[in-house]
Amino acid sequence: MRTSLDCVPCILRQALEAARRVSSDPLLHELFLREVLQWASEMDLDGPPPVLAQRIHGRLRELSGVEDPYRSEKDAQNRMALKLLPELKAKVESSRDPLGSAVRLAIAGNVIDLGVHGQIDEADLRRALRTALEEPLLGDLEVLRREAEKAQRILYLADNAGEIVLDYLLIEQLGPSRVTVGVRGAPVLNDATHADARNAGLDVMARVIDNGSDIPGTVLEDCSSAFRNAMDEADLILAKGQGNFETLSQESRNLFFLFKAKCRVIADHAQVPLGAHVVARPRACAFVAREVPPGRNP
Amino acid sequence: MRTSLDCVPCILRQALEAARRVSSDPLLHELFLREVLQWASEMDLDGPPPVLAQRIHGRLRELSGVEDPYRSEKDAQNRMALKLLPELKAKVESSRDPLGSAVRLAIAGNVIDLGVHGQIDEADLRRALRTALEEPLLGDLEVLRREAEKAQRILYLADNAGEIVLDYLLIEQLGPSRVTVGVRGAPVLNDATHADARNAGLDVMARVIDNGSDIPGTVLEDCSSAFRNAMDEADLILAKGQGNFETLSQESRNLFFLFKAKCRVIADHAQVPLGAHVVARPRACAFVAREVPPGRNP
Repeated sequence: MRTSLDCVPCILRQALEAARRVSSDPLLHELFLREVLQWASEMDLDGPPPVLAQRIHGRLRELSGVEDPYRSEKDAQNRMALKLLPELKAKVESSRDPLGSAVRLAIAGNVIDLGVHGQIDEADLRRALRTALEEPLLGDLEVLRREAEKAQRILYLADNAGEIVLDYLLIEQLGPSRVTVGVRGAPVLNDATHADARNAGLDVMARVIDNGSDIPGTVLEDCSSAFRNAMDEADLILAKGQGNFETLSQESRNLFFLFKAKCRVIADHAQVPLGAHVVARPRACAFVAREVPPGRNP
Repeated sequence: MRTSLDCVPCILRQALEAARRVSSDPLLHELFLREVLQWASEMDLDGPPPVLAQRIHGRLRELSGVEDPYRSEKDAQNRMALKLLPELKAKVESSRDPLGSAVRLAIAGNVIDLGVHGQIDEADLRRALRTALEEPLLGDLEVLRREAEKAQRILYLADNAGEIVLDYLLIEQLGPSRVTVGVRGAPVLNDATHADARNAGLDVMARVIDNGSDIPGTVLEDCSSAFRNAMDEADLILAKGQGNFETLSQESRNLFFLFKAKCRVIADHAQVPLGAHVVARPRACAFVAREVPPGRNP
C-alpha cells in the first residue's frame, strides 16, 4: 500500500521515540529529527511506510553504534509471552475449535508492537488475549481453514518478538512439519529475528529462515533470493502484523494477513473498524469482512 | 517557551488537518505537507510553536485564497456558547464565589480549540463546564483575586471563538469599565478576532483592541505598537489559552495565564498534570501548583 499522508506525523513521532531509546543526548534527538523531516519532505509516497522505517532505524543504529537497540525489550516480550504459553496451549487444546482459537491468540499477540504502542505489560497482553477470544474475528477464517487443510508448504511470516511466542500455538495447529517460519534478516524495531524464533522454541519445531532484509515488513526486492524462493514455493502464506500487510497487500499469492488493525490508515485500507482482529486476503479493497462469531471458540 | 521536539509531529498533524479543511485536493495536501516538512527541518526551535503555526496557516490562506477558513466553525462555536450563556450567567451570579466560578468557566471554555482537538460539540462543552466547576483549580486564584481588586487597567487577552463568549462572564465580574479585551489582528485557526468579540457582545461592554498579528498567541515583536502600548499600560494582564502561555511565559509583567493543559508539553512546562485547569503566573518553572478546592464554588 501507498504511504498515507496521515502516516507522516506518526512516523515522525516514532522516529523521535526511537532516537530517545538509543541515546539520552537531546542534541542527537534534534539533529536526527531534522534529518528525518528532510527525508520525509522528499519521500516517495508510492512505497509503503515500512521502507521509511527501515531508513530511520538503520540511521539510528549507525548514529548510536548500537546494533540491536530493542534487544532487551524483545527478550522481555518473549519472556512475558513464554510465561503465558502453557495456559494458552491448554486453552487451545481444550477448545472446540483449536485452529480458530490459535488464530485468535496469534492475532492478539500482534498488540506487542513498539512501532504503534509504547510498552506493553502482562496485564495489557492478558486483556488483548481475552478480547481476541471474545470479540468477533473479521475475515476469511473458514477459507483459511480450507486452504490450510490442503496446503503442502506453508510459509508463516512472523512479525514481532513476544508475538512470535503466540505464533507457536498456531504453527503447532497447522502442523509444523509443513511450515517454514520467516523472520526479519536483521534487527529493526522489536521485529522478530532468528534469535526470537529460537527463544520461542520455533527452531526445534519447524524450519526457520530469515528474509535477508531489515525492513519491518516484507518488500520482496529487498529480500534474499533464498527467501524469495521460499515465497514462490509456498502454496499458502500466513503473514502476521501491519508491516507485512502494508508491504504485501498488492500481492496475488495465496496469502492471508493476520493482524489487529491498530491505526486508522490500516483499518481503512482493510475496510474494517479500528481495533478489529482480522484475517484478510490480498487486494484488501475487495475484502469483505465477515464475522466469525466468538461462540466457535471456548 | 521553546518549541519541544514533541511539538513537531503534532504541528504536522495540525497542518495536514488544516490543509484538508481549506481544500479537497489531495495533491494540494501533499505539496503543502512536503513544504511544511521542509520548513520544520530548518525551523528555529528557540521560538514558540505558534510562530510556525502562523506560517502554516498564512501559507494555507495564500494557497486556498480563503481569507478566513475557520469562519463558519467560529460562528458555530460562538452560537453554541451563546446558547449556554444565560444559564451560566445565572450560575455565576448565584455562586458563593462569583469571581472564582467565572474564572473556572472561562478556563473551561478553553477546550474549544481546533489546534489541539477536532470538533467540539455542545455535549463536550457542557462536560467541560461541569468538570471545571467540580475539579480542583491549580494555581494562584487568590493572588489573582487580590491583584484584580486593586488593578486600574486590566488587559484581557482572548484566545478562541466560542471561548470568548465565556470570557464575557469573567470580564463582567472583573468590572468591564477597566477592562480592555485583546483579540488577534487577523484570522488564524479558530482564534478570536474583532468579529468574535462583537458576536460575544464584548464590544458594547468593554474596549476591544486587536494585536495586529496573526500568530495564534502573543509575540510582542509581531504586534502593533498600539497593542504593545496597551500591554505596557495595563497593571494586570489575564491571558487565555495555551497559545498565549507558549508565547508570553517568559514575560515579567503582572500576568496570569488561564488555560486548560491540553497537551503533555504544556503540562510539563507549567508543572501541572495533563488536563489540569490552571491559573499560572509567568516563569512557569517557579510556579507552584496550589489547589483551590471546588467547595468554594457552587
